[in-house]
Amino acid sequence: MIEATEKFSSDLLKNFTIEVFLHFGVPKQDAVTAADVLSLADLRGIDSHGVARLHTYFDMFKLGRINPKPTITIVRERKSVCTVDGDNGLGLVVGPKANEIAMDKADLHGSGWASVCNTNHYGIASWYSLKAVERNMLGWSMTNSTKLVAPLWGAERMLGTNPISIAFPGKKNLPIVIDLATSAAAYGKIEIAKRKEGPVPKGWIINSKGEMTTDPNDMIQGGALLPLGSERELGGHKGYCLSAMVDILTSVLSGANWGPFAPPFALRQEIPSRSVGKGIGHFFGVMQIDGFMDVDEFKTRIDEWIEVFRNTKPAPGQKAVLIPGDPEHEEEVIRRKDGIPLLPAVIEDLHDISKQTGIPFS
Amino acid sequence: MIEATEKFSSDLLKNFTIEVFLHFGVPKQDAVTAADVLSLADLRGIDSHGVARLHTYFDMFKLGRINPKPTITIVRERKSVCTVDGDNGLGLVVGPKANEIAMDKADLHGSGWASVCNTNHYGIASWYSLKAVERNMLGWSMTNSTKLVAPLWGAERMLGTNPISIAFPGKKNLPIVIDLATSAAAYGKIEIAKRKEGPVPKGWIINSKGEMTTDPNDMIQGGALLPLGSERELGGHKGYCLSAMVDILTSVLSGANWGPFAPPFALRQEIPSRSVGKGIGHFFGVMQIDGFMDVDEFKTRIDEWIEVFRNTKPAPGQKAVLIPGDPEHEEEVIRRKDGIPLLPAVIEDLHDISKQTGIPFS
Repeated sequence: MIEATEKFSSDLLKNFTIEVFLHFGVPKQDAVTAADVLSLADLRGIDSHGVARLHTYFDMFKLGRINPKPTITIVRERKSVCTVDGDNGLGLVVGPKANEIAMDKADLHGSGWASVCNTNHYGIASWYSLKAVERNMLGWSMTNSTKLVAPLWGAERMLGTNPISIAFPGKKNLPIVIDLATSAAAYGKIEIAKRKEGPVPKGWIINSKGEMTTDPNDMIQGGALLPLGSERELGGHKGYCLSAMVDILTSVLSGANWGPFAPPFALRQEIPSRSVGKGIGHFFGVMQIDGFMDVDEFKTRIDEWIEVFRNTKPAPGQKAVLIPGDPEHEEEVIRRKDGIPLLPAVIEDLHDISKQTGIPFS
Repeated sequence: MIEATEKFSSDLLKNFTIEVFLHFGVPKQDAVTAADVLSLADLRGIDSHGVARLHTYFDMFKLGRINPKPTITIVRERKSVCTVDGDNGLGLVVGPKANEIAMDKADLHGSGWASVCNTNHYGIASWYSLKAVERNMLGWSMTNSTKLVAPLWGAERMLGTNPISIAFPGKKNLPIVIDLATSAAAYGKIEIAKRKEGPVPKGWIINSKGEMTTDPNDMIQGGALLPLGSERELGGHKGYCLSAMVDILTSVLSGANWGPFAPPFALRQEIPSRSVGKGIGHFFGVMQIDGFMDVDEFKTRIDEWIEVFRNTKPAPGQKAVLIPGDPEHEEEVIRRKDGIPLLPAVIEDLHDISKQTGIPFS
């Protein structure tokens, strides 16, 4: 953010993204959906998951590693649950379709659950849970990803940052949006620290020997991120457990590549030593609020929850306790008005895509 | 454990527990189930959740605060999802019945989900997920509980330690059992530190002003536990989010008392300022493995996951990376053979119950 020099309208970035996907043969409706997922990340201030990643998708398409026209199918099902094969499509296309399958199942059976294999990076986890909220449903969303995190007491990368999201709609209030990686810190923060030549807090990373370190280079050169909780004493085993849960639900259960075998998202990342399934994995779960409680009553209760928690006595030096999703809701208001700030390196990436594809970017 | 002076056979403790519940009019089958939940905690080394809590259940029954013969009913449902009213029964009775409702729904609809109100403390979360495993299902279990934890940036207790459990069966291996409180540390550990007059690690607790402290007395006298992640820099907002998720799924969704309004489990705990529902809340979710993947194939994949993670290169000074559930599986083997070690204070409690009820304990 501090390094951002230029702002772009969300529409401009979204349209450019659509054109890039169309360029590779992605059908129009899929390109629009995929661009919407990236766009929401930029609007909500999750900069690492927006157009900053477009060049990576571009690279993968260019190398033919992603299928632009996947045939997404339910390969096994039993009423409310199913396994979806994404046919190596863009995760931004497979994810939304599998999430819709889960929502349609919830319409029929009260809840719907889809474990997804043969897919790729799906953007921000909360795009999916927010889609469920639009239909008065509670939606979970999880994905595994390329290995970056060591299990507690381990000295090597074995798990992705494996996020979990779920959202709860209020009546007068914007939804509570939970969206968290199960690592102590995001990889992006390590890269920023490296660029600034500063140390990172103790508890974020280990070096290649498995020792705690505060030097970001130690992690980047063969070390690993630590799971949420960081060390045994502070509950590092819990973060490891949560990451394992996501890995199993998304990838062991669907027939995807789990743990250290998840294929890389970016070209610079190492190719795993072997394959234990197809692509990476997602997991979507959707429940009809209406099957538990009158929707209006639930939303009113969520409003009350929000108000009570917002009024928690704050710790010294803090203004107030936040509600999950608050920072992103605030950012969205600002960015819809002022535009999306992009780092020079990201702008350069977009110009490079423009040059290579002939799609104008300005 | 260090202070334990005497060991008791699991059967002796279980039979005593059954008799105590029968004494208060709990029906035989319910008393047996309830005792089984407590017994498994003792066998698996989760000492805080076994017979160490029997005196608290005893107190609550004695004061007529728990209904020994609840009529547990589904008050709303839509195929795979439902809300269950526990009629203020023992959580150790309501929990197992609601979990069974979820499993029966999963038989019919591929998955089953029950949010439960009007219930009480339900023992260890993993008893429920292990029941699902016995039926080749994946079972989630969550509960809210009396406030002890501050949300990140808050200076007061607003949430329970709100655990999450899920278990995954292997073929040759014992199941992976995830069972974690969403706080950085358990309250029991603060009490132990107080007894030993020692400090606790930074990141576990705050004092009544909301300041980080290492003095256990500061927490006990009106302070709070910190959520998993402890502070903003290490992801304390994530632990708060997970705890909020559990609170909402168990209690906002079911019509139970959420957040700071969860009624106390023990007599020494403060009565909340108001009530926003009925009792505390649980949440059970069960999915048929078979609806996603051939059960045998899934179990084989879990075996492979376990073997790969067990062979993670260990960090310096560590023997190996553990699989979630390993320490409890090991403890269970030892305790089934050698008996359950009890602290003098717990033995005294059991003798007191014996004296007050006339049920022999020896």
